Amino acid sequence: MSQDVVIIGAVALGPKAGCHFKRLEPDSRVTMIDRDNLISYGGCGIPYFISGDVSDHGQLQATSFHMLRDEKFFKDTKDINVMTNTEAISIDRETKTVLIRNVLDGKEQKLSYDKLVLGTGSSPRQLPVPGSDLEGVFSVSDLNKAISIKKEIAEGKVGKAVIIGAGAIGLEIAESLADLWGIETSVVEVMDQILPGIISPNMARMAQHHLEENDISFYLEERVERFHGKGRIEKVATEKRTLDADMVIMAAGVTPNCDIVKEAGLEVSSRGTIVVNKRLETSDPDIYAGGDCVEITNLITGKPGYWPLGSLANRQGRVIGTNLAGGNAEFEGAVGSFVIKLFEISLASAGLSLERAKKEGFDAVSSFVVQFDHAHFYPEKDLVYLELVVEKGSGRVLGIQGLGNTGEGMMARISAVAPLLKYRVTTEDISNLELPYSPPFSSAMDILNALGNTAENILAGKNRVIEADEFADWWENRHNGDMLCLDCREWGNAGPFVEKYHEHWKSIPQGQLRTRLAEVPKDKKLVLICNTGVRSYEAQITLDQMGIKDSYNLQGGIAAVKKWGLDLLK
Amino acid sequence: MSQDVVIIGAVALGPKAGCHFKRLEPDSRVTMIDRDNLISYGGCGIPYFISGDVSDHGQLQATSFHMLRDEKFFKDTKDINVMTNTEAISIDRETKTVLIRNVLDGKEQKLSYDKLVLGTGSSPRQLPVPGSDLEGVFSVSDLNKAISIKKEIAEGKVGKAVIIGAGAIGLEIAESLADLWGIETSVVEVMDQILPGIISPNMARMAQHHLEENDISFYLEERVERFHGKGRIEKVATEKRTLDADMVIMAAGVTPNCDIVKEAGLEVSSRGTIVVNKRLETSDPDIYAGGDCVEITNLITGKPGYWPLGSLANRQGRVIGTNLAGGNAEFEGAVGSFVIKLFEISLASAGLSLERAKKEGFDAVSSFVVQFDHAHFYPEKDLVYLELVVEKGSGRVLGIQGLGNTGEGMMARISAVAPLLKYRVTTEDISNLELPYSPPFSSAMDILNALGNTAENILAGKNRVIEADEFADWWENRHNGDMLCLDCREWGNAGPFVEKYHEHWKSIPQGQLRTRLAEVPKDKKLVLICNTGVRSYEAQITLDQMGIKDSYNLQGGIAAVKKWGLDLLK
Repeated sequence: MSQDVVIIGAVALGPKAGCHFKRLEPDSRVTMIDRDNLISYGGCGIPYFISGDVSDHGQLQATSFHMLRDEKFFKDTKDINVMTNTEAISIDRETKTVLIRNVLDGKEQKLSYDKLVLGTGSSPRQLPVPGSDLEGVFSVSDLNKAISIKKEIAEGKVGKAVIIGAGAIGLEIAESLADLWGIETSVVEVMDQILPGIISPNMARMAQHHLEENDISFYLEERVERFHGKGRIEKVATEKRTLDADMVIMAAGVTPNCDIVKEAGLEVSSRGTIVVNKRLETSDPDIYAGGDCVEITNLITGKPGYWPLGSLANRQGRVIGTNLAGGNAEFEGAVGSFVIKLFEISLASAGLSLERAKKEGFDAVSSFVVQFDHAHFYPEKDLVYLELVVEKGSGRVLGIQGLGNTGEGMMARISAVAPLLKYRVTTEDISNLELPYSPPFSSAMDILNALGNTAENILAGKNRVIEADEFADWWENRHNGDMLCLDCREWGNAGPFVEKYHEHWKSIPQGQLRTRLAEVPKDKKLVLICNTGVRSYEAQITLDQMGIKDSYNLQGGIAAVKKWGLDLLK
Repeated sequence: MSQDVVIIGAVALGPKAGCHFKRLEPDSRVTMIDRDNLISYGGCGIPYFISGDVSDHGQLQATSFHMLRDEKFFKDTKDINVMTNTEAISIDRETKTVLIRNVLDGKEQKLSYDKLVLGTGSSPRQLPVPGSDLEGVFSVSDLNKAISIKKEIAEGKVGKAVIIGAGAIGLEIAESLADLWGIETSVVEVMDQILPGIISPNMARMAQHHLEENDISFYLEERVERFHGKGRIEKVATEKRTLDADMVIMAAGVTPNCDIVKEAGLEVSSRGTIVVNKRLETSDPDIYAGGDCVEITNLITGKPGYWPLGSLANRQGRVIGTNLAGGNAEFEGAVGSFVIKLFEISLASAGLSLERAKKEGFDAVSSFVVQFDHAHFYPEKDLVYLELVVEKGSGRVLGIQGLGNTGEGMMARISAVAPLLKYRVTTEDISNLELPYSPPFSSAMDILNALGNTAENILAGKNRVIEADEFADWWENRHNGDMLCLDCREWGNAGPFVEKYHEHWKSIPQGQLRTRLAEVPKDKKLVLICNTGVRSYEAQITLDQMGIKDSYNLQGGIAAVKKWGLDLLK
């Protein structure tokens, strides 16, 4: 049975759905329209195009074998008709036609379909800030906009830039401006942390510290009130300050493109996304939708989730392609996986952050471990920082977060846990997780196993912990006099701290604790400290055994505190 | 309830079990004995100690915070008594005592136990080769043996070395001798591939090719018959040749150390391992065992499996520690995970190789994909080679294999699949696998998703493939005249092949195939070729549609064939 398939949107989902369908039903006809002239590009590569890592925008539109994915490419190699500069005006579900218009000459025509695919995508959220229409105020909505931004930068128009929004796109653009172009870059964010809702506050602060070390300024908990300038942007006014700016980039999230869909009477969610079932059918079984314009199931919470990501769009496209051809493929949802490169570090997550888990009603805690990615005796190695978010009682793993250098030791660990989350694994599963082992790649007891073990100990009440951010707070108030840091390392490490902070810092190496117990103050809240939190945990057990119970193990130890931005020896 | 726990063996499992138990029951007493003087070392690090990457053997025995794990360390920091140079002679289960003997002075004594832990490990398999007692013939049984090997090398005694066995240890030692010491190194293996039983033949050949490029010689399907020499080894005689050798290292697998256990009447398997349940209890509930001396369940086949690995030993140690303290932890088994660094590449696997799957009675096939680890437009990237082993019919994933550069892009993918295998995932799960996505780390359609898709297409009969090794065989016999390579790439890539092999190589770019169909020979078996197997798959669909069905897609394309060692343009 040969069919006519029309696809609206030709960036990620559309091409994937169309190509896969054509491989299954070569005799059917596919027409794909897009209002833009550039199609089938890697939108997630835009920050690397702006930075100059990707020199030409054509590279984002090329296959891995260097062919440009334009209209001719789709015709010749995929037997798909593409109409660019063409927007869909309306869908008539009765007659099964789409009214389209050429945006260059205004000509309209109707396309008949047996099956229709909606890959209409999303648009940057427009903030109602006065002055948004000034020259030099951008949002990164598409590749053409990115070309304009890069052109202005290359022409030397931009010495200072302000990014609105510290989400993934905001931070990637901030790096791209500051790193290779040397632009003085500030980020304004209305929430109290970067990557809100994605990364746990403690780890977000570590990443922010790294960005600040790379000369990016942050203004958190600040709302932008007005853009000033004569014709071109000159200043950004927030509630608290005014920032000079030659360019502003708005990156305050995206909203799904669904106007045409609502008018056609298809079911739309309260968030404004097209409602689809697992087969990615809309409320009209002849119309499929996927990508940034749909909501899918969050496999951790069971509630609807929204992740506008090219990776999900591609896989959904394949599912739609199969179903167009009469197959029965399903897209069951996602747990939400994330990774970002920020200068020399990378930051990743899967599932819920600690804050997010609590907001969703979970009684959650987290374990935090710092360990080398490879065997500690192997010469090449990097520290990895991992946080596991778990539910009390059940021990169910709700999420994982990781920070590491740009080598992929950290990514290997997040990748190992992300696909497991939907199986409702527990801390015990992480403790016993089986990964390939060899000293150039991991430790015999991998950091993931250690992370699971630590979570088990915390849940069992055997490891009472504080995080780097709590410690920073306690440390700031140390002169209240009720807190003492007990350093469990040898004198070589502990000495400089004791000498500088003798009132608040005492050293008893963990191996001497049993014999020097009399020296431990009994009237203070003890913060147990070592390099990464391993020896301080052993010390806590010894103290507990001896009846000294008001002690707190600093998770991640001095390594975590320093990464957080608190350098006590500076 | 305070207990006396005795642990036999102090390398990996023993210390982990003892330390974890002491954290749970600090008031109990632990005595750990070992016949060696060196304990608690990273045995898997021995090849890197021999190579010189790890300069001092003490580093293998040190904690991550540089403390030597000797008797004093265990006493001071863990409150565990260690008796080195002490071997266990017999176990009296009636009186719950172990008879031990100091190997230096021969003194014997009895230790009482409430609970006993057996971490007796394994020993290198001794081949019955005449001349094995010659000086310079080694096996890498322990750290002291490794120190002796390194000493001989450092003294300049070794110009040529022969390794017996191309398993993991054999190959790691081969690299350590050849790389930094520049020793002329040969490996003799009785099977017809390196890493037999672990890595699929096609990928094993790729790794072998890389080792050969690094000047290691291989003699496969050869049995060693005799070692020749006067006092010291001079020559190694196989069935087919005689090799000069100043040193021989036997690395033909290991056998579990279970003599004392058999005599004590504990249940032992036909393989000679101690039989344990999931709690790691032996047939005597007061005696636990784990590590290289036990068999565990293969979670793919459901049958017993034997993996002498430090990573499993450590995790089993923790399970035993919990159960000693009255807990109820279980070690359910393993799927078998593996990784090895070989000069500039790394090679990993989880679950069953294709050969192994067939031997276990599965009707299995494999898909093979070559793709960049990062987005193809991102400047820093490496090719990754992955093979997915799946069961026909069910689509169940039985195993995965990977080869890549030493960056960890490949490891991240194997790590993502290894923990999933026990959940009996199918190709569809791999097609939709959710990994964190961003261009510096992956493609929107990750290589793992592509690997799942390819497997689905093969199972559905839509992608008829051949592997690099089959192609090499066909190519060698190309003058029979029934085979033609149809190159689906543009002329820039295809031209040199057509010019060199015009009788057997024809070029029609995939995008021109529809219009140039008349040029396709109908009387030959067509091998469809492109860089990595993507365009040739599209070509196959077009040919099928046109009724030309005797075509075979070369999986992994020219990239795979070249990696395999067949450089057609050389």
